[in-house]
Amino acid sequence: MSDLLKDLFTVLSFQSISTDPAYAPEVQKNADWLVAKLSSLGLTTTLHDTPGHPIVIAQNKHAEGRPNVLLYGHYDVQPVDPIDLWDTPPFEPTIIGDKIFARGATDNKGQHMAHLKAIEQLLTEEGQLPVNLTVLLEGEEEIGSPNLVPFLEANKDTLPCDIIIVSDTGMVAPSTGTMGYGLRGISCCEVSLEGPNSDQHSGCIGGAIANPATEIARLVSSLHDNQGRVMIDGFYDDVEPLAEWERDMWAEVVGMDEASMLALTGAPALHGEAGYSSAERLWARPTAEVNGIGGGYQGEGSKTVLPSTAFCKLSFRLVPDQDPDDIYEKVKAHFEKHTPAHITLKVDKGHGGHPYRSDPHDRFGKVAQAALKTVFKNDPVLIREGGSIPIISDFKRILGADTLMLGLALPDAQIHAPNENFPIENFEKGVELGKTLIKVLGKL
Amino acid sequence: MSDLLKDLFTVLSFQSISTDPAYAPEVQKNADWLVAKLSSLGLTTTLHDTPGHPIVIAQNKHAEGRPNVLLYGHYDVQPVDPIDLWDTPPFEPTIIGDKIFARGATDNKGQHMAHLKAIEQLLTEEGQLPVNLTVLLEGEEEIGSPNLVPFLEANKDTLPCDIIIVSDTGMVAPSTGTMGYGLRGISCCEVSLEGPNSDQHSGCIGGAIANPATEIARLVSSLHDNQGRVMIDGFYDDVEPLAEWERDMWAEVVGMDEASMLALTGAPALHGEAGYSSAERLWARPTAEVNGIGGGYQGEGSKTVLPSTAFCKLSFRLVPDQDPDDIYEKVKAHFEKHTPAHITLKVDKGHGGHPYRSDPHDRFGKVAQAALKTVFKNDPVLIREGGSIPIISDFKRILGADTLMLGLALPDAQIHAPNENFPIENFEKGVELGKTLIKVLGKL
Repeated sequence: MSDLLKDLFTVLSFQSISTDPAYAPEVQKNADWLVAKLSSLGLTTTLHDTPGHPIVIAQNKHAEGRPNVLLYGHYDVQPVDPIDLWDTPPFEPTIIGDKIFARGATDNKGQHMAHLKAIEQLLTEEGQLPVNLTVLLEGEEEIGSPNLVPFLEANKDTLPCDIIIVSDTGMVAPSTGTMGYGLRGISCCEVSLEGPNSDQHSGCIGGAIANPATEIARLVSSLHDNQGRVMIDGFYDDVEPLAEWERDMWAEVVGMDEASMLALTGAPALHGEAGYSSAERLWARPTAEVNGIGGGYQGEGSKTVLPSTAFCKLSFRLVPDQDPDDIYEKVKAHFEKHTPAHITLKVDKGHGGHPYRSDPHDRFGKVAQAALKTVFKNDPVLIREGGSIPIISDFKRILGADTLMLGLALPDAQIHAPNENFPIENFEKGVELGKTLIKVLGKL
Repeated sequence: MSDLLKDLFTVLSFQSISTDPAYAPEVQKNADWLVAKLSSLGLTTTLHDTPGHPIVIAQNKHAEGRPNVLLYGHYDVQPVDPIDLWDTPPFEPTIIGDKIFARGATDNKGQHMAHLKAIEQLLTEEGQLPVNLTVLLEGEEEIGSPNLVPFLEANKDTLPCDIIIVSDTGMVAPSTGTMGYGLRGISCCEVSLEGPNSDQHSGCIGGAIANPATEIARLVSSLHDNQGRVMIDGFYDDVEPLAEWERDMWAEVVGMDEASMLALTGAPALHGEAGYSSAERLWARPTAEVNGIGGGYQGEGSKTVLPSTAFCKLSFRLVPDQDPDDIYEKVKAHFEKHTPAHITLKVDKGHGGHPYRSDPHDRFGKVAQAALKTVFKNDPVLIREGGSIPIISDFKRILGADTLMLGLALPDAQIHAPNENFPIENFEKGVELGKTLIKVLGKL
């Protein structure tokens, strides 16, 4: 094994599963290792306890007039269930072919360790960094970063920040430099309907009172028209139209064509808002999605009840400049308007997160693309992400800086799933990218 | 305790739960007791084994020129779960106030034992019966009578039958003689939709492919228009219109007014097919009911998946002359027509049963109403039932005879539930009804 991989393999062996309290000592062990490592590089490193898992902060000596760069990553990982589906032990990193298999290999140890190796090499080769660097590594990303926002708010004065680097998103294809400049936001809610006060006999009562399962279906069906457009009043009011350059660029983007999307999902056909491509639907258009629907008998065979209650769990993916609270109010108003008097409605608000978009053509975006081109030898692909990373908009709000999303994850990385993996090439390119980027940022 | 109740209490102590094989000896014990009892009355009594629980047949000596009367009942009962909610032990019949509390008190031991007591008293008082009587008591009604149809088909020659008496339905109110002359049929199916080949991330994929939970809701919502009318092509083709005399009669029927229906169910308002009353909706109009709907995340909180599959379980209550197989084909065609190409449909056929209606004004109906009037001292109420009792139409098909449904169950009898009960008055009136009816049938 090369020296380059040695530290990565060490951190991949820590069972830093943040959601399960039984693994708290392993999370702590990973944090302690990071503190020791970053200190050994000469960075001023501190471990910040939180009500949950600790946050690691490391800084070089900052000087006036240099860009303030914050590098973010997370050292916690997802659980490994179902363990039986792993071909190798998840916390014994194993190289098979040209890939490293381990929990966290891509998400996110492989990606942030590439940046730490870049810093180590720069410091070894040049003695110092050309930027004011702050490394921020948290241990709670996989459980929603509950303590990061309070930490940022309490410590923003010691976290000077012009630009943030995050490698925690995807590449569209192997060896294809990819820069993300947008994320969808989210607004969640649960809708419950109550009819009779207990399940009724569908023969003795069915036909004379409303059926909550039928009514929840009618409410869900009111969310879209036949063209896949969301029918909630005002839903699109704040949606920023797609720019022509984005539509042109995404028309060509690898992996988003019909055949690739069908192969990826196994769906019988594509379906979405009429007038938009898959890339546009995923990256720049909002959605109304049912995450769960239920009511009445769920077992084998039949049970002829008229259920007492039914529910649906909904999430709305949002794009700039939709606001999660505003969308929740519009959703609630929609259901109140569409619920007939013969059934009782309850809407419960769930979590929300703001959408995010930066200008990929500003000075930071330009140097990031230059760095990607240097490393990957091709024109970088500019994408947004369909998912939501609320901390990116929290960074913007609290620290005032945009984020360069320079993801190294491949579509088949199996993040959150058995046999998570990371190509050695991606790790090596990540190190190169980290070095190149800090150098070009230092010249701004 | 009166002598009249002694035999009833004996049979109520048998734990004749048909669905649980552990109780098979208790079911057998009940059957053996019935054989002994009916034999002791001088009836020719036989116990017929089946692949499940036995059928008891008892006949007096038949003579030419007398009406052939078949009395049907079932000596099996529902399970007693949840046992904690019973105020008295379910198999230790207990009188509280003027009611008998026990599993089976109403359904069906109390009702068929009233008829057996009537036969006993008639034989004691008159030495013989004025009709050719066949008593048929089965032990599998609560599990769908799987062996009754084969038994009827194999033995129809020894089961001469002009009219059938069944007390296994409801009275509209206490002390109100009630005759049922119709039942709804049923046609069940399960509809499954399949989209992507596994649950997808609602951010990364949501918006670009169809969501099976959304699509099942859209299919369910296609079942009804805004007036509660079923929108399946041809669904109402074979529906017999309500007669004017039925509409007039049911307009007055006790217990079916808005306040009673709301109190019974706890629903916030009534709802059903526009243009019909609750009684009409329940007894003479077909329905499309969702018994269960499901798909995606069912747990607490949120999980932002785009589910791979979704389903709904449907039952259609049918009225004369709808046919369960024909309705199933129309339902299937409806879903095939309404399912878009971006989702994969599967429809599985469930059980079915024919609707039933007799003429309450034929000669048997008239004498039954006369008997009810004699016993209850008021004009009997003529109703149909919203539920389905498939054996009634099986009797018609195999034995060629209609059924007089002379139910003694009250709306608060708690059948199939904890604290099942039967008023002593209903048992006593049932004995009187049985005697009166056999006497008037003997005069036909």
